[in-house]
Amino acid sequence: MPRLFERVTVAGVGLIGGSLALAARAAGLIGEVVGLGRGAANLQTAQRRGIIDRYSHDPLDAARDADLLLLAVPVRAGAAAARACAPALRAGAVVSDVGSVKATVLRDVEAVLPAGLSFVGAHPIAGTEAAGAAAADAELFRGRRCILTPGARATAPALAKIRALWEGVGMQVEEMDAARHDQILAWVSHLPHALAFSAVNALLSADAGLQRYAGPSFRDLTRVAASSTEMWCDIFLANAAQVDDVIARFVATLEGLRHAIASGDAVQIREQLARAQAARQGWNAREP
Amino acid sequence: MPRLFERVTVAGVGLIGGSLALAARAAGLIGEVVGLGRGAANLQTAQRRGIIDRYSHDPLDAARDADLLLLAVPVRAGAAAARACAPALRAGAVVSDVGSVKATVLRDVEAVLPAGLSFVGAHPIAGTEAAGAAAADAELFRGRRCILTPGARATAPALAKIRALWEGVGMQVEEMDAARHDQILAWVSHLPHALAFSAVNALLSADAGLQRYAGPSFRDLTRVAASSTEMWCDIFLANAAQVDDVIARFVATLEGLRHAIASGDAVQIREQLARAQAARQGWNAREP
Repeated sequence: MPRLFERVTVAGVGLIGGSLALAARAAGLIGEVVGLGRGAANLQTAQRRGIIDRYSHDPLDAARDADLLLLAVPVRAGAAAARACAPALRAGAVVSDVGSVKATVLRDVEAVLPAGLSFVGAHPIAGTEAAGAAAADAELFRGRRCILTPGARATAPALAKIRALWEGVGMQVEEMDAARHDQILAWVSHLPHALAFSAVNALLSADAGLQRYAGPSFRDLTRVAASSTEMWCDIFLANAAQVDDVIARFVATLEGLRHAIASGDAVQIREQLARAQAARQGWNAREP
Repeated sequence: MPRLFERVTVAGVGLIGGSLALAARAAGLIGEVVGLGRGAANLQTAQRRGIIDRYSHDPLDAARDADLLLLAVPVRAGAAAARACAPALRAGAVVSDVGSVKATVLRDVEAVLPAGLSFVGAHPIAGTEAAGAAAADAELFRGRRCILTPGARATAPALAKIRALWEGVGMQVEEMDAARHDQILAWVSHLPHALAFSAVNALLSADAGLQRYAGPSFRDLTRVAASSTEMWCDIFLANAAQVDDVIARFVATLEGLRHAIASGDAVQIREQLARAQAARQGWNAREP
């Protein structure tokens, strides 16, 4: 595989940004990597682990002559980072991101991007509730799905290189409309996080003493409530309309089950449970 | 450890009943084990795996001269099984159960139990979404919690033997009031199951094509939706009042988060997320 980018600036050397730098370097896809961030301790960890060659807290310094700027900061901070870095980038450089929300990011980044730079929205669907460069893992992406949402500023060569980058670290890449992406993620990721955060909070508010009885079911349900609050606040706000719609639909379904239970309607309960069970067992069969 | 029971009738040789028979035999705590159930295939599997010595579809045959009747059927079927088996049990025999709901089971079983038999409600908090004798595992209970809810028919010797049985297979045993048990389980188990079933159903009703994007978050959230529908229909109905209350409190909390998102209130969102995160990370530190 030929080298795709000579110098990469990673804005936000966290779990995703750090893991990509590790994996893409190991695959020979990128040359020098420069970290941009605020927290010196995290950037030092990244440098010590060989994730980045050097780092800077100054966007113009970090982005100097880079041909790829990877936005791996919380989604609502992406446009500001792009604007701050843009003047220092190499002519014809590619800007991309890794955010869990695409439509508002696309809109905001495109609005601040100088002519001559292209932008390709990307979302590698991987990660854990861990955060920071210390958690970066070169194998994080292997076999997982990456969604590209090319917009008006995605040139064909830029799109091809970003596709090659994610395929090169082992991902299955597909392209779709940003709004469709945001609807899908609202269901399969943003809703589970909203439920996890709310389940912990409801339990705490009901009776803090209940915590010690949380067994496997409650722990699985709420595992992702340990995730970064800054990142998730941004995701919820950046995808507010879709998240609102999905929570409303979920609550309506849950209230349907609650009503069946309250009215002792075993037939209705069994039917709802059987439908869910059949679908969920089908996923088990396909799992990794 | 001296043998606690000479002959045990296990009504419902599923994951829990089968695992207890395996574990208690391995520990030398029980003698002969007789399976009672409807499905011949499952009982044959249990016999082939050495979980039971023999089985019968006839309660009086299965329970003959047993000094322990273990009710491991769906919770609303427990009282009928107790009534059907009682006449054949040895004088002074102990009846116990493994159900996830205690108050209504206690009430219903005590109502049908002839004089001279004692009843000790028990709930070993262990299990997976797997079902049947094929999934039985002698190590299922080790290190996990078992809650005993002794009622009016729990004699001191019967309680001591049931405690010794569960401790003997590696569980941490504690006693509490049946209503408190049911409140705790409504939170840490029944709610997660209701959310899992409803999340799958909401997703299916919104757009069946979304299923293929279900990643780790959604899979963890909905893992328990693959559980037995018969067992869970019974649990929801047997604990209807507590489940109703807990779902209502959960929905109120979730609607609070939804409102904060819809109104763009980042301060409120961050505060809710931080509270959940702090508690959940604390559980990680104590895991498993």
